[in-house]
Amino acid sequence: MPKVTFLPHDKTVTVSEGENLLRAAMEAGVHINASCGGDGVCGKCRILIEEGHLEGGLSDRISAEDQAKGYRLACQSTVTDTDVVIRIPVESSIDVSVLKRQAAPRRTARIHQPDFESLREQGLFVPPVEEIYLELPEPSAADNQADASRLVNFLTLNHDEHRLVVRLSLIRKLPDVLREDNFRVTATLARPVQPGRKTHVIKVQPGDTTDRNYAIAMDIGTTTIYGQLIDLISGEVLAEKGDFNGQISYGEDVITRIMAAEKPGGLDKLHEVVTATMNKIIAAIVKQAGVRLDDVNAISLAGNTTMTQLFLKVNPRYIRRSPYVPASNIYPPLQAVELGLELEDHAAALVYPQVSSYVGGDIVAGVMGSGMYRTDRLTLFMDIGTNAEIVIGNKDWMACAACSAGPAFEGGGIEFGMRAARGAIEDFSIDPLTYEPMLLTIGSVRPKGICGSGLITTVAVMFEAGVINNQGKFDRELGTERIREREGVWEYVLAWQDETQIDRDIVLTEIDIENLIRAKGAIYSGCMTLLEEVGMGMGDIEQIYLAGGFGSYVDLEKAMIIGLLPETDPDKVTYIGNASLLGARMAVLTNRLRQDVVNVTRMMTNFELSETASYMDHYVAALFLPHTDLNQFPKLKTRLLSSRPNS
Amino acid sequence: MPKVTFLPHDKTVTVSEGENLLRAAMEAGVHINASCGGDGVCGKCRILIEEGHLEGGLSDRISAEDQAKGYRLACQSTVTDTDVVIRIPVESSIDVSVLKRQAAPRRTARIHQPDFESLREQGLFVPPVEEIYLELPEPSAADNQADASRLVNFLTLNHDEHRLVVRLSLIRKLPDVLREDNFRVTATLARPVQPGRKTHVIKVQPGDTTDRNYAIAMDIGTTTIYGQLIDLISGEVLAEKGDFNGQISYGEDVITRIMAAEKPGGLDKLHEVVTATMNKIIAAIVKQAGVRLDDVNAISLAGNTTMTQLFLKVNPRYIRRSPYVPASNIYPPLQAVELGLELEDHAAALVYPQVSSYVGGDIVAGVMGSGMYRTDRLTLFMDIGTNAEIVIGNKDWMACAACSAGPAFEGGGIEFGMRAARGAIEDFSIDPLTYEPMLLTIGSVRPKGICGSGLITTVAVMFEAGVINNQGKFDRELGTERIREREGVWEYVLAWQDETQIDRDIVLTEIDIENLIRAKGAIYSGCMTLLEEVGMGMGDIEQIYLAGGFGSYVDLEKAMIIGLLPETDPDKVTYIGNASLLGARMAVLTNRLRQDVVNVTRMMTNFELSETASYMDHYVAALFLPHTDLNQFPKLKTRLLSSRPNS
Repeated sequence: MPKVTFLPHDKTVTVSEGENLLRAAMEAGVHINASCGGDGVCGKCRILIEEGHLEGGLSDRISAEDQAKGYRLACQSTVTDTDVVIRIPVESSIDVSVLKRQAAPRRTARIHQPDFESLREQGLFVPPVEEIYLELPEPSAADNQADASRLVNFLTLNHDEHRLVVRLSLIRKLPDVLREDNFRVTATLARPVQPGRKTHVIKVQPGDTTDRNYAIAMDIGTTTIYGQLIDLISGEVLAEKGDFNGQISYGEDVITRIMAAEKPGGLDKLHEVVTATMNKIIAAIVKQAGVRLDDVNAISLAGNTTMTQLFLKVNPRYIRRSPYVPASNIYPPLQAVELGLELEDHAAALVYPQVSSYVGGDIVAGVMGSGMYRTDRLTLFMDIGTNAEIVIGNKDWMACAACSAGPAFEGGGIEFGMRAARGAIEDFSIDPLTYEPMLLTIGSVRPKGICGSGLITTVAVMFEAGVINNQGKFDRELGTERIREREGVWEYVLAWQDETQIDRDIVLTEIDIENLIRAKGAIYSGCMTLLEEVGMGMGDIEQIYLAGGFGSYVDLEKAMIIGLLPETDPDKVTYIGNASLLGARMAVLTNRLRQDVVNVTRMMTNFELSETASYMDHYVAALFLPHTDLNQFPKLKTRLLSSRPNS
Repeated sequence: MPKVTFLPHDKTVTVSEGENLLRAAMEAGVHINASCGGDGVCGKCRILIEEGHLEGGLSDRISAEDQAKGYRLACQSTVTDTDVVIRIPVESSIDVSVLKRQAAPRRTARIHQPDFESLREQGLFVPPVEEIYLELPEPSAADNQADASRLVNFLTLNHDEHRLVVRLSLIRKLPDVLREDNFRVTATLARPVQPGRKTHVIKVQPGDTTDRNYAIAMDIGTTTIYGQLIDLISGEVLAEKGDFNGQISYGEDVITRIMAAEKPGGLDKLHEVVTATMNKIIAAIVKQAGVRLDDVNAISLAGNTTMTQLFLKVNPRYIRRSPYVPASNIYPPLQAVELGLELEDHAAALVYPQVSSYVGGDIVAGVMGSGMYRTDRLTLFMDIGTNAEIVIGNKDWMACAACSAGPAFEGGGIEFGMRAARGAIEDFSIDPLTYEPMLLTIGSVRPKGICGSGLITTVAVMFEAGVINNQGKFDRELGTERIREREGVWEYVLAWQDETQIDRDIVLTEIDIENLIRAKGAIYSGCMTLLEEVGMGMGDIEQIYLAGGFGSYVDLEKAMIIGLLPETDPDKVTYIGNASLLGARMAVLTNRLRQDVVNVTRMMTNFELSETASYMDHYVAALFLPHTDLNQFPKLKTRLLSSRPNS
């Protein structure tokens, strides 16, 4: 893989062939002024090729003469298969030692890959629905036992199956199905959660259909619902689809949904629209995978407590009222059809249990999917969104809490905040002398706004560069026109009007920063409170699992700088993506997990932070960058002391 | 109680004050010519009061002079509170020894009274649904467990209840119900059939409602459906109602019903009409008892296999086709509402298991209700109707079979046969010299026809009097105008045209007798075959339970004379009435019975008589009065030899 060396910084990174040069610079921790996000319009990111060559980078903003000398626009250049040495024009007054100062490298989390092979090797790859081919003896005058008895007795005698129950809906079909292929049938058995309990015979099909056994895993998110169609024989995901939860028009968050459900007819309506979304996804993935609906034997569902209750048509009224009581933690096994899902009537619906009103089945699914319930290592699990849920513990104990982080991480409450979509500023660097920015946007187009991970990076970089102080206030004395006061609020101009897609200056305000600090403070202090309640400290955390929509893009080092995450080795951090969906998927692949989940749920001690006396103290202490107590972030403290000896 | 002495027979009976004199004579085994059934029109039943007096009995058919002498019509006279001596005019030629000859006394079966007190004393009076009043702690910040957990944990800690399941439909109501009376609630628990299995919490009501716990027992008969509303606290039947099964218009017997169900849409239709009848009965008895529908917690259902499958909407197609395979013997616990019953959605439906296509839940219910499954004594259980079911066994083993008796016992296939209703000849005696009859009808009105029990008595009396021989043929040489040939068929005139309600002679034909013999032969040979299969004989039978509509009226001695029942001490015979309804009722009063019923059902070995080689031999041997082998009826043999020394 080609190497790129940046001068005068003398920093080298190895990148993939075809990498954008501006991204390579960001990767190397090298600043190049660039405020159009990589679109090529600002013309600021001029660089000079000293050795080797780049592809592209020509622009009418560079004269023919300069082009001949080797000048290019970094944002328009890509690295070829050969090494290259690049010189970046810097202010003459700059001290090269500043350029060479080690900034926190860009580090995103390792992405978790569920290891189904190891499940298989451990004998744990046992789906909760199993198909068995049977050649039953045909009835005769000497043996005219009832059809259901014939089936059950054969399974008992020849397959060591016990405590079998045949549901009425199957008994209704049984006489004809058995005779369709002369008593050669495939029986589908739904395993009990607890060994020794009843096994339900849920389906009988003529002939041998044991090569077709599918299930659906579904995450019922407040905003988005994701479904996966899973082959229970190979363990593979055959199709996947996400769609907006149809309830969105009734409110963006769980509280407004609950209020909508409390209106006359509201609960029925909310159930109906979420079910419609789910059915749309089911139909799409079944079609996409090309399987027969009749061969889908189970659906595993995970959602937060409110989403679960709304889907199950259980009044969520008391979830939003102190002392925040959900209707139930555990739901008995259900039939998908009785919930309005458009599956065949044999399909089992497995609903993830809840811990509390605000630590729901999505989090339990995450705990199960991540495997943290099986490890000795003290683990911090965080699912970050508008509501952030935190679980701390290991196989022996778990404590959990939910806190309202607010929508900052999803772009809400931030003046130019947006979701992680094309045009969102996702990475940021600042010139240590001129305070000019270097912006990268998703899609390398002119910026439209800033997403959650971009916001974290921007605030972290500015804080470490001394542009904002530990209270999130801009240094009013830096002498850059980018920092200005407007209507009494101080702000930094990330991109000028003519460099954006939206024909306005894109700015980061002190109010935005305050919102971010509140969000990260809520989460960090939640962790602190939980740890304190169990007599531990942040230093005891051995590994971190990050879940949630924006987690895969977060620069971990930056998240530690702002104090969202405790300062730790980034190698200890794993991103598990949509943990709820992962857990839902695992539940249909290994029945062992379903056996464990009830115990795990019982083991998870819930703390209502609002009722925990020390939470407010921890919260106030966390409303700084990174924290009132800098000693909790020793590496950052060292860097800050070395770079800002006067501060 | 007054005594009535009949002369010249010199027979005395003790009767109740107000007893009809004709019935008193029948009771005493004294014959008085009387062919109008007790209506007073034939004027034949003249008697003379010799001592004491009678009430009534005056008629324009007796001259004033004779009335003054003490002549009365027996059928119009009733016994007062004093003893009376009556002389019956008899043919001068009659030998008094004939009159004094001991005929078989009239003996109906002892009627079974279920002994709920003894259940209670044995601690077995534990209904499958129980109500418990709970004062739950109210939720607080320190204790905000889910509503369902609060309920379940309280039941576990304070009431030693384990393995509790709360159904989704209840979870939906729980949050509001708990808060209606500040967490003071009554929980209704549905007990598992097998101890150690799950207990379902099916209902929670605000406040203390433990004084209201009701259930319904229902017998789904082919012809008639009976329901009882039962107080599960006292064990009492608060209301009862029977109604014709709405399916009757689709056929009178199970075979035609099955054929109707096989037509397109037929099964749905038959389910619908039977459910409509059941709902009519439910509504009536709930109203009659004045209970709230919400307080009816269970319904127990017993019916034959076809009725059960039609009600449960399970295709009965293979029931009528060799090798006669039902869909299922056992049905899992169901909710009444999912079966279309108009009860509240918490109400449990308990369906009696089946043994085979023709030994259904009604018979299993009878076995359970009679208690024969708990006794050491070898018991013969017979439920006699169009289809007769026979069970032989005790607590250690049971064999059962069904046979098609035909409708003779219900009046079908008998020229003047009718159900046991007003105007049906129910008792009969014959003058040993003149062969004139003495008829008693239900309601003491002029006869319309003859019912099943009347038919048995009539044939038995005629056989013992030598009017018909052991092949059921009339003695053509008796010289009575009542025995005649009409269109090639011999018959006996029970009542002349002008003595009847129907303006026709009412006769008993040899074809009628043949049909009766076939019916009783089918049942007796069924018993013989069953006994032979288990290596026993009729002599081993220690007690008999009779069930079915007509059983309470059957004169047991007469049933033994025709060979319907084995010859035994009538004290050993108990009539249990509607055994299916009795069993259904017992099932909601004692959960122990529900625990036993599965084992009992498994223990009941079914014999398909049509597939049992010896059945036809036994049947042919039973097509005589009482049987080819008179030695099986030793007491009758003795009587016959003494009364008919020449035969």
